[in-house]
Amino acid sequence: MSVICWINGDFVPLEDASIGVSDFALQRGYAVFDFARTYNGHLFRFGDHLARLRQSADALYLPISVSDAELTGIACRVIQESSMERPAVRIFVTGGDCNDALFENSNIIVTGEERAAVDPVLYETGVSLLTHEFQRELPAVKSINYLNAVRLEPLKREHNVFDVLYFSAAGVTECPRNNFFVVRDGVLITPAENVLPGITRSVVLQLATGSMPVEERMLHREELPDVDEAFITSTSKRIVPVSQIDRQPVGAGRPGPVTQSLMRLFDEYVHEWKG
Amino acid sequence: MSVICWINGDFVPLEDASIGVSDFALQRGYAVFDFARTYNGHLFRFGDHLARLRQSADALYLPISVSDAELTGIACRVIQESSMERPAVRIFVTGGDCNDALFENSNIIVTGEERAAVDPVLYETGVSLLTHEFQRELPAVKSINYLNAVRLEPLKREHNVFDVLYFSAAGVTECPRNNFFVVRDGVLITPAENVLPGITRSVVLQLATGSMPVEERMLHREELPDVDEAFITSTSKRIVPVSQIDRQPVGAGRPGPVTQSLMRLFDEYVHEWKG
Repeated sequence: MSVICWINGDFVPLEDASIGVSDFALQRGYAVFDFARTYNGHLFRFGDHLARLRQSADALYLPISVSDAELTGIACRVIQESSMERPAVRIFVTGGDCNDALFENSNIIVTGEERAAVDPVLYETGVSLLTHEFQRELPAVKSINYLNAVRLEPLKREHNVFDVLYFSAAGVTECPRNNFFVVRDGVLITPAENVLPGITRSVVLQLATGSMPVEERMLHREELPDVDEAFITSTSKRIVPVSQIDRQPVGAGRPGPVTQSLMRLFDEYVHEWKG
Repeated sequence: MSVICWINGDFVPLEDASIGVSDFALQRGYAVFDFARTYNGHLFRFGDHLARLRQSADALYLPISVSDAELTGIACRVIQESSMERPAVRIFVTGGDCNDALFENSNIIVTGEERAAVDPVLYETGVSLLTHEFQRELPAVKSINYLNAVRLEPLKREHNVFDVLYFSAAGVTECPRNNFFVVRDGVLITPAENVLPGITRSVVLQLATGSMPVEERMLHREELPDVDEAFITSTSKRIVPVSQIDRQPVGAGRPGPVTQSLMRLFDEYVHEWKG
């Protein structure tokens, strides 16, 4: 497998792509990114990913000196020249050298990435979640700060769960790398505040609107035992049913009809995707 | 100015030292560090800095394959071979390549760093702080996550303050890069929980103990208007008096007698420092 990376104007093999030790990304964890995939060889909702990248960068005052058209061309070439079975791209914007005037030499990096394979059984059985009290800093900003997410890996293994589900006094929010939905009495509900504005989340809301009642609102942790269905969404995994939360079955403990219907709608939506 | 960096066994000019784009530090903001300085050419309390580095790394499951004696030797050589007026070293431990088994190839980096000069007037006039509601993630861990600290720079400029002072429902904690102390009715008080265990903080507590009452406890934000003195501490700036918080004078609005006494004690302590 050879993967290509574009860094500040040059296409290089990924293993040769590096950032200086003085970069704000290492010195201060100061960088944002986005992650996009393909369907049928075409980047999926790439305009949405670029818009979110620019929102993240703006929130941290990071300039992006490359146009959307250029970034799209670069991402396409990175995918074409990499050999990947499940192509994806990750775009970083870092603060640049911390000795320079603030962010005047930010690094822009577009790297190919082999998307992790998802066990297809998960779509049939659903996955287990463990609630965990935590609120991400700057939740709408896709920064590189996944310190807590990575640090919780041993906890997930210990509890044999697929992922943790963050909650705080302000309600249930999201998983570290997935948005969260529930279905209750036929209504599709997803947390409205303090979450990453996921692209797959927005597609699911788009597909559901019109065919079922949809609520974007605060979701109390105490509501979880009463929901009929639950699922998580992400770019790489699409819609994954949730069958257990905190060792308790969600609904009947298997993927419910609304979840399955949305999975079918999503599959149809991407089946003919041509960018 | 030429600065040397040791990275995974090699001494190289800082500008040639880099980490791969696939490193956990860029991919997931997953790295810890520590920062130590010299007095009289000797590293100050370097054993304490290494102990804290190991605690930070342990909390994130990051291995450090180099002994304290080796790290000390490396830091001394980095300082000797760099040309710096105000020598300091920064030690990073990153998660290594995110495609490898978890953290099996963590990067260890020791880099020279010219410590920023501090305007000596600040020690005479004191500085202004602005309270800001925020709680750092994993406060006892010196991770690279300074996202919020860097992002608040424009706010500091807008309010013309030297630093922000974090508080939450659990009380006042610290500044992004400084610990915080107050003096009230002759008692030295510093927040006990949810703060970085600063090395300068611990030296100040050591110097004060015996000569004045000392309390490490929760400090409510509502207490701030009633304190007689306040100061901040850090490796690079030692003890800096605080003369204003939220535009209100602290005590008489100038460095108070307890602060000045601790500044003198600290200066005496480091004056003869020989490591």
